[in-house]
Order: sequence, then structure tokens, then C-alpha cells
Amino acid sequence: MARLRRLALGLLILTTGAIAARAQDPLPSWNEGAARTAIVDFVKATTTTGSPQFVPPEDRIATFDQDGTLWVEHPIYSQLVYCLDRVPVVVKERPELANVEPFKTVMSGNREAIAHLSEDDLIKIAMTTLTGMPVDDFRAEVKKWLATARNERWKRPYTDMTYLPMQEVLRYLRANGYKTYIVTGGGQDFVRAYAEATYGIPPEQVIGTSAGTKYGYGKDGKPVLTKEPKLILDNNNAGKAEGIYLMIGRRPHAAFGNSTGDQQMLEYTKGGGGARLAMIVLHDDATREYAYGPAAGLPDTKVGTFTSALYAEAKKDWVVISMKNDWKKIFAFEGP
Amino acid sequence: MARLRRLALGLLILTTGAIAARAQDPLPSWNEGAARTAIVDFVKATTTTGSPQFVPPEDRIATFDQDGTLWVEHPIYSQLVYCLDRVPVVVKERPELANVEPFKTVMSGNREAIAHLSEDDLIKIAMTTLTGMPVDDFRAEVKKWLATARNERWKRPYTDMTYLPMQEVLRYLRANGYKTYIVTGGGQDFVRAYAEATYGIPPEQVIGTSAGTKYGYGKDGKPVLTKEPKLILDNNNAGKAEGIYLMIGRRPHAAFGNSTGDQQMLEYTKGGGGARLAMIVLHDDATREYAYGPAAGLPDTKVGTFTSALYAEAKKDWVVISMKNDWKKIFAFEGP
Repeated sequence: MARLRRLALGLLILTTGAIAARAQDPLPSWNEGAARTAIVDFVKATTTTGSPQFVPPEDRIATFDQDGTLWVEHPIYSQLVYCLDRVPVVVKERPELANVEPFKTVMSGNREAIAHLSEDDLIKIAMTTLTGMPVDDFRAEVKKWLATARNERWKRPYTDMTYLPMQEVLRYLRANGYKTYIVTGGGQDFVRAYAEATYGIPPEQVIGTSAGTKYGYGKDGKPVLTKEPKLILDNNNAGKAEGIYLMIGRRPHAAFGNSTGDQQMLEYTKGGGGARLAMIVLHDDATREYAYGPAAGLPDTKVGTFTSALYAEAKKDWVVISMKNDWKKIFAFEGP
Repeated sequence: MARLRRLALGLLILTTGAIAARAQDPLPSWNEGAARTAIVDFVKATTTTGSPQFVPPEDRIATFDQDGTLWVEHPIYSQLVYCLDRVPVVVKERPELANVEPFKTVMSGNREAIAHLSEDDLIKIAMTTLTGMPVDDFRAEVKKWLATARNERWKRPYTDMTYLPMQEVLRYLRANGYKTYIVTGGGQDFVRAYAEATYGIPPEQVIGTSAGTKYGYGKDGKPVLTKEPKLILDNNNAGKAEGIYLMIGRRPHAAFGNSTGDQQMLEYTKGGGGARLAMIVLHDDATREYAYGPAAGLPDTKVGTFTSALYAEAKKDWVVISMKNDWKKIFAFEGP
């Protein structure tokens, strides 16, 4: 009987603990406001049994753009820094590239000239630095780079540059049965190398721009997959909706983005029946992060274009997240 | 106190129930033998805490070919029956096809001629019947077809033609924390239409041969994805390993196949470290199902080629499942 009582008491303690945890604020870094309310209302509406907008657990899919939505993208995408950092290594392996553009410019170290490389040049650099190696080597290289590379402004690892309020949204959705996906214009293999440790998102839930691989055998006779310079999925704009269909096969119930590259993903999400949440991050905090986006009367930049057309659609049908007003804290490393 | 006691008792009953369930045979349709033992040993080795071959839950990935591994493929793939059944509908919509090969032959109803269509003809038929429509329409069509179409020999819905012993393996692996995937040479969208109801496998865990989609807008202004005749992933042979890398990004710990199309998936699985299970189904039961495969001295067929080279590799490094000897029961609808 004493054992039974201990068992029951233990159970009660466990239950009470769970209730206490549930009562804790799931979004402590968010200020009160329309954005926060939209998230909480959406989760309640779609996960409360008996709610007219209840979504069965297997259909709870939420998709997140990465650059500018989950972590800093300004003034340059982290993956592009990786590619530029890799150029000297590739040139050492293939010295003939040293006198060929755009590699010559990158090797010159002339930052102004590098900043003005064309999109075609950047694609050339990406293809050369991101393909041609076994997939395991690539993943190891990215991890090695992340361990030492630092964001120029904050002098911190790139994986520290994630937005704490968005990390809270990821955890809050997962705690309510949502499968969280990254749907990025960035390289799928690149993001997969750190997504599990950084966001709690496993590789199979990272959808990104993908090159093909080629199956073959190593010297030991074991199978090797080698990254090929052959684009399979351009996961930007319409490609995001197409990529979601290819990789998930269901329409998300919630989607988060910050630029024209996310427009179709957000539209596609809202195009479904029942409760659907589409949110867009506005970078309007020049002090704590950056302020850009012509729609909001802010300067235009090379990354994260937030056009007037996008802003008009956002105001009609989506919820805008103002970094300045909606976020108490932007990074986990900030003081309390 | 009475409440506490009821609570504790309830807990005990729940616990005892769980223990009883665990003690039940997870593979009742399997005879004792090397195949059954290999499965049970693998699960124990990879999921028992402290085992030297323990696999953390997030890495527990198991992949299954479909045709000939999870359900009947002989004498013709079910999806091909679907495509042939769709030809009259497509010809009604596009009458100009009635006099064009290979549609003319299909419309003739001449079964001998249809059986001799070339691979190019079949690809033409597949592209015409599987693309050009909104993805939601396609899924609805497949479901409608499955509700009425019948397997010719057993006069049953195709979704009844799954192998009970393999359904048990799927459930057994999932009960032990494995994520189960279908990795099929068949159409990804086709299999996704029924995989959740038929195998308990959600669409995002079905990897198959995939055509692209095109994002656009319907008459109501809502987003529509339309199936395009543009191959993205040929999920056969080396394509299976490449498809697994693209869609999952991790190497499986267990893989099941039945033909040369599965060879690279099985090799790739075995190529990883620690405990890896590769199994191959041999169709050697002419009475209860079919017997084919030249490797086993059985007749060769158009489907599920089981060559001598494959059989040699299988005997070295994989475990062969003999339908005749290893399976007590093949279909759920058979008598007890």
C-alpha cells in the first residue's frame, strides 16, 4: 500500500509539473501585440479538441524561411561568406582558377570589387565551392567552418545569430504537435549541416536549393555520393511552394518569411482551407539589428527584398512582425 | 485517499498493459528462421540502451521499396494499370490522340499488343496520364480509381494486396522508434495518395519517381500546383540512394527491396557504420503468390528483375526473405 501511495504521489507530482510547464509563457521574448496574438490564437484554434478549426496532428506542418526569418541575413548571406572563404582552398587545389574571373577578384581581397560581383559570378562561385566533393566531406567542411567563422558585427559564430523570438515560435509549435520545416533559398546540404543542433530541425525537415548527387564507389569499394553541379530544385519564389509539394506533399498550416522569395510559400499556405497563418518579418530595427526594405520606407538592399507589392499583400492577408515593436529581445546572447 | 488508490491502480493497469503488449509476438506471420531472426536481432541491437550498436532515435531510418516488397507487382505494376485505365479518359479529352501510338494500341483493347508495348511507349503513356492536371485533382483521381479497381487474380482492391508480414515489420520498426519510408521507383504522387491509409506512412515519408510541378493561379485567384511532364527524380537503381540523400539527408539503418532497382539502396544502407540491415524479398511461392527471378532458377519477368549478380551480392551481405519459407501468411485477407 505504501508503494501504491508513493506511485500515485509521483504521478501527481509529474502531472502538476506538466501543468505548471504549460502555464509558462511560451513566447517570453515577444511583446504583447497583433503578431504575438496571431500566433497564440492560431495554435489554440488548431490544436484545441472540439475547435471548429482543429487540425489533426498529422497535418500540422509549419514552414520557415531561414535567411532574414530565423537568422541574420544582412549585409550578406552566411552561406555566401562560406563560399567566398572556400575560394582560396579550391584555387589551391585547382591553380588554373587563380587567373579566371570571378575567382581572381575573390582572391584579390578587394572588398568593393567582391561586393559588386554579378549574380552569374556568384552562381559560378557557389557551383565551384559547393559541388564536386563527397557529401560527407562537404558536411564536415561546413561544420569545421561554422566552428571558427565569426559574424563581422557581433564577432560571434553564425549559429548564434538566430532570432530568439523565432526559436520560441519553433519550440511552441513543436510542443503543440507541429512538424517544423525550414524552407530556404539557401543550399539544402549547407543548412542541413547545422539545422538539428541550431534549430532542433532534423535534416529531413530542411528543404532548400538542391544540386543533384552522383552515386559511385570509393577506393574501398564502399558507396559514395558526390555533389554534382546540376540544379534539381531552385527553392525560391514559386520554387518554395513547388519544393514543399515535392518534399512534404501537404500544404503548411503556418508559414513564416521575410522577402519576395517567400511570397508564393505564404500565398500557398493561406490558399488552404481552415485556419492558416502567414507571417512576415519586417527588418525595421536599425539599432538592435538592421532596417531595410523599401516597402517600409527603409533602404533597399541586395538581400531580403521587401517590395511594396509584397507589403500590400502582407497587410491584406498576412501578419507583419515588426522586429522593433514585437520583439523584446532579438538574440539569446543579449543581456536579460 | 480512495482517489489516490484509484489513480495508482489505473497507472498499474496501464503499465501492465504496456508490458503485455510488448511481450506479444511482433511478427506473428513470420516463421522461425534466419530472416525473422535478422529483423528481431537488428531491432534489439539498435534500440536497447547500452547496446554497442545502439542507434539514437533521430537516426532510426528504415526504407522500403514498394512494388514486390510491400505489395504484389506481378504480372504488372498497379500504377501501370492505373495509367492504362486513364487512357480512354485522356483520349476523350484530347480526341487527336486516338489515332496516335501508343494510345491507339491501348484503345484497341488488344491485350497481347498492350503487353508488348516498349518502355518508351509506356513512358509516353505515363507522362500523358500522370501530368497536366492540378495536384489535388490527380490525388482525387487516384483515390477514386483505387476505390473501384480490382486486382485481376484476387478480385480485390489493390490496397488489399500488401504483404501482411511486411506490414508487421513496418509496425514493429515504428514501435521501436524507426521512421519508416517508402522508396519506390513508382510515382511519388501516386503512392502518396494511399500510403498513409495503406501503410501508416505519411506523404512526406514517401520518396518516388517525381515530375516537377508548376505554381500558378486558378480562376478564383488561388494558388494551384500543376503536374509537369518534367522528370525531377528517377528513383530507381542509383536514383534510390540519391533520392534518399535528397529527401532524408541521412543513411538508412535498414532497407528492404526485391530487385536490381533496389541494389544501390541496399548497398548504401550496408555501407554505413554500426548495425545495418539489408533484406531482399525472393518471390519463390508459385502457389500463394508468384515465383519469378532467374537468380533462383525461376522464370524471368518484365517486373522485379532478380539477377544472378544481385543474388550473389544478396547472399554475401544481405538477408534473403523467402516468401515460401519465411511467411506463414502472405495477405491479411487469407484465412487464419
